[in-house]
Amino acid sequence: MTQIDDRCAAPAAPSAPPGEGVGEAFDARRFRESAGAVAARLAGPLTDLSVRGLALTDPAELTAAARALMTAERDRIAPHDPARLDAIMDLYVRTGIPVHSPGAMGRQFSGVVPLAGVMDFAGAMVSQPASFYEAGQLPSVAERIMGEELGRLIGWDPAAAAMVTTSGGSLANLTALLAARARAFPALWTRGGTDGVRPAVAVGADAHYSVTRAAGVMGIGETQIVRLPLDAARRIDVRRAGPALAAARRRGLSVFCLVASAGTTSVGAFDPLDELAGLCREHGLWLHVDGAHGASLLVSGELRGRLRGVEHADSLTWDAHKLMFVPAPCTMLFYRDGARSLGAFRQRASYVFDEEPDEYAALDSGGRNFECTKRPMIMPLWTLWAMHGPALFAQKIEHVCRLARDAHGLLLAEPDFEAVHAPQANILCFRHRPRGLAAPDVHRFQNAVRNRVRGGGSFFISKVDIDGTAALRAVLMSHHTTLDHVRMLLAEIRDAGRALLAEGADR
Amino acid sequence: MTQIDDRCAAPAAPSAPPGEGVGEAFDARRFRESAGAVAARLAGPLTDLSVRGLALTDPAELTAAARALMTAERDRIAPHDPARLDAIMDLYVRTGIPVHSPGAMGRQFSGVVPLAGVMDFAGAMVSQPASFYEAGQLPSVAERIMGEELGRLIGWDPAAAAMVTTSGGSLANLTALLAARARAFPALWTRGGTDGVRPAVAVGADAHYSVTRAAGVMGIGETQIVRLPLDAARRIDVRRAGPALAAARRRGLSVFCLVASAGTTSVGAFDPLDELAGLCREHGLWLHVDGAHGASLLVSGELRGRLRGVEHADSLTWDAHKLMFVPAPCTMLFYRDGARSLGAFRQRASYVFDEEPDEYAALDSGGRNFECTKRPMIMPLWTLWAMHGPALFAQKIEHVCRLARDAHGLLLAEPDFEAVHAPQANILCFRHRPRGLAAPDVHRFQNAVRNRVRGGGSFFISKVDIDGTAALRAVLMSHHTTLDHVRMLLAEIRDAGRALLAEGADR
Repeated sequence: MTQIDDRCAAPAAPSAPPGEGVGEAFDARRFRESAGAVAARLAGPLTDLSVRGLALTDPAELTAAARALMTAERDRIAPHDPARLDAIMDLYVRTGIPVHSPGAMGRQFSGVVPLAGVMDFAGAMVSQPASFYEAGQLPSVAERIMGEELGRLIGWDPAAAAMVTTSGGSLANLTALLAARARAFPALWTRGGTDGVRPAVAVGADAHYSVTRAAGVMGIGETQIVRLPLDAARRIDVRRAGPALAAARRRGLSVFCLVASAGTTSVGAFDPLDELAGLCREHGLWLHVDGAHGASLLVSGELRGRLRGVEHADSLTWDAHKLMFVPAPCTMLFYRDGARSLGAFRQRASYVFDEEPDEYAALDSGGRNFECTKRPMIMPLWTLWAMHGPALFAQKIEHVCRLARDAHGLLLAEPDFEAVHAPQANILCFRHRPRGLAAPDVHRFQNAVRNRVRGGGSFFISKVDIDGTAALRAVLMSHHTTLDHVRMLLAEIRDAGRALLAEGADR
Repeated sequence: MTQIDDRCAAPAAPSAPPGEGVGEAFDARRFRESAGAVAARLAGPLTDLSVRGLALTDPAELTAAARALMTAERDRIAPHDPARLDAIMDLYVRTGIPVHSPGAMGRQFSGVVPLAGVMDFAGAMVSQPASFYEAGQLPSVAERIMGEELGRLIGWDPAAAAMVTTSGGSLANLTALLAARARAFPALWTRGGTDGVRPAVAVGADAHYSVTRAAGVMGIGETQIVRLPLDAARRIDVRRAGPALAAARRRGLSVFCLVASAGTTSVGAFDPLDELAGLCREHGLWLHVDGAHGASLLVSGELRGRLRGVEHADSLTWDAHKLMFVPAPCTMLFYRDGARSLGAFRQRASYVFDEEPDEYAALDSGGRNFECTKRPMIMPLWTLWAMHGPALFAQKIEHVCRLARDAHGLLLAEPDFEAVHAPQANILCFRHRPRGLAAPDVHRFQNAVRNRVRGGGSFFISKVDIDGTAALRAVLMSHHTTLDHVRMLLAEIRDAGRALLAEGADR
């Protein structure tokens, strides 16, 4: 370890503006040129509808390429170099997921609506933190407006409900659990510990890992997670959930919150919220709905029934960066009873919180979200909503959900494919089981197929374990993707499978 | 509450691409036009060096203005309207903090380096989550490179240390506390609770509220926070810290982590890291340094001595969105022993974590940061570093720190101003005490002056409580700000004070 010597006391010249190099880095004309060059580079993929998968690069090779693009200048400010910027952008776009391609089916994000990206750009430049009204006036107001607009779709009274944006679904789930904990154990924030009580959380067996991770963060151990059994459609089985909660109580656990999923990450299953709300009432539990993926279906008249009963929830996580096609993160956490949102965090700091709240402080969200510095993340979503209305989202969502259903129908007719569920959203999970594949090899075979397709195919897909056996997973996100692309994907998977079986036979 | 009816089963047409409106929203030419228009609007403030404060708008008025900009169309996709976009941008910029003005001294952020904003724009469009190599190849590599570059400035062995980006300093502090907890209480993640042990955290009395908030999140109550006394310079007083830790032990607390500040938020004080490291060794504590504000001083040869001893820390939070002038969030969490970074979260999820890690998985950060979806936040910072080298940051930081010191010298000569500290960074806190102001009124007077200046002056400043009495707080962030602007600020404060005293006399 090197030592840092204390040179603070060295005499320095009186304050004079720093050298030319700094000024040049803030030059307005250069900024517009760079923005134009980057926008031109970003526009390319919008018109390129070729079916492409991921171009995975060896990390060592990519590191060398990135290092080669860095100036060696240390003591002076190296001047701007448009060629260097071009090369960086080229490397960035080339190694990025081709999110606008009909072949991108790997994850729950896609090419954002371009206007959302443009507004995100504005947010990066205009103002920074949006946790306090004075620092982000329009974002604070837009957050309140979107809370009302979307809260109405949930079925909540805008006067009572509240919404707060936060940096990602994981943080929203953590925040909701904290609000639930504050209701059940109001003294915990001050006194800590729980003096013999063992707080516990009930989750569906397919809940997102962020939920159990949030519990772990809070000091709720894995042994205090009550995993509720699933039915054949991989939804929480309400009939078996009651007995599971009773058994937890007998084990000495104090369950205070039940987390349901509105669109599981694995297969996009929707837990029966209506029935679960009844169960929560009966047991005095906070019902949190993790709708990071599926809450966006509320925007569609055709699909909103998937979330029947969500109006009875205490809180709801909703990621707009998934099925509302805006840059990540844009996560909204809704509370049916807005006053509960103040329970999650209890604090004061004089440099951010006002002693005598005024009309401005009423719009501060810093007391209700985890972050102090928070991106004005609502602006891209609000701008799309303001410009185009809800139909933009509804049409895209309806397309990808219909496509998943039709693709499922397609699979059912193929003897060498096995559907593992009937899709409820835009996620389709299935297995390839060609003739000649022995049953014990099915698991490893899916992983191998997926890596082979990812390694050089025309599609980017992912994988998921279902009941301990791997399955292939296509998340349909693009309005450019059609059933023909799904047919191409199946053909590519068959090719990969054939090659793998042939290699296996050689060994 | 409205009921959601289940219309899922309604027959729907087979998958066909959605209507024209969706396609138009993704039109490449329109994207470039919108990006150009927004860039032009954003370029304006770069050349406007007028001295301006905040234009605070009544929230109800701003809400009405925002509502007026929203389409009423619900069922169809309203077409793009460049005039609407212009109006939104106009409202956004007008109500935002004038971050490039020499008058913006309110908070720890400023106008970002424009190229960083441009690269942030690219990150919004190119790829989304950067927690996994396959989803963000260049960001993953750039993160590793910046970890090495900056890790060397800390004084750490790049082969042993690790860096992970995360969404804000609050989350980084939480993550560090979790890693520290995992070292001290390895069974907690699985078993929960602590069976009679009362885990506790020691913090300086001026630690950022996110540190105690993180402890609260973890179930460590306020009574388990050991507040270490400060010396006259508002740094942790090492001689009194040892006895405070011993007293905590006698109270039955198991302190496992000491959080020091490298640049407190209130006054920018640097705790004596070298001595605190010795104390931590003695007591077996994890030393976490919250350098959200001040770690950036490591980039300057002139200023890095402020962090003498940081090389002995176990972990360090470093916000690049403060003194490295990139869009928020860009927070880096450094670990001296990289292996410890795996302790913070312990989980597996088959759709993101690979069963058989390959050369790609080695660069995944999802197991070491809280988020599943994480913005490729390193790209703006890496691009600046690659393009201009470290001198760009060093020159700006040295300017604002010298300016704070010179401004302090100026204050000392003014009988109606009181300096509350000698600035160690770019934060200057002081009080205005004109003749005729009674001692009991000093606290409320500072708040009143601040609100008056904020309400319509040429400067945006903040306030902070120091030993229970409010003070004015100027955070010098712009390379355009000079000592002449500080003189203007003092004159404006005097005017506000005079007016307030006169009003008081009238009542």
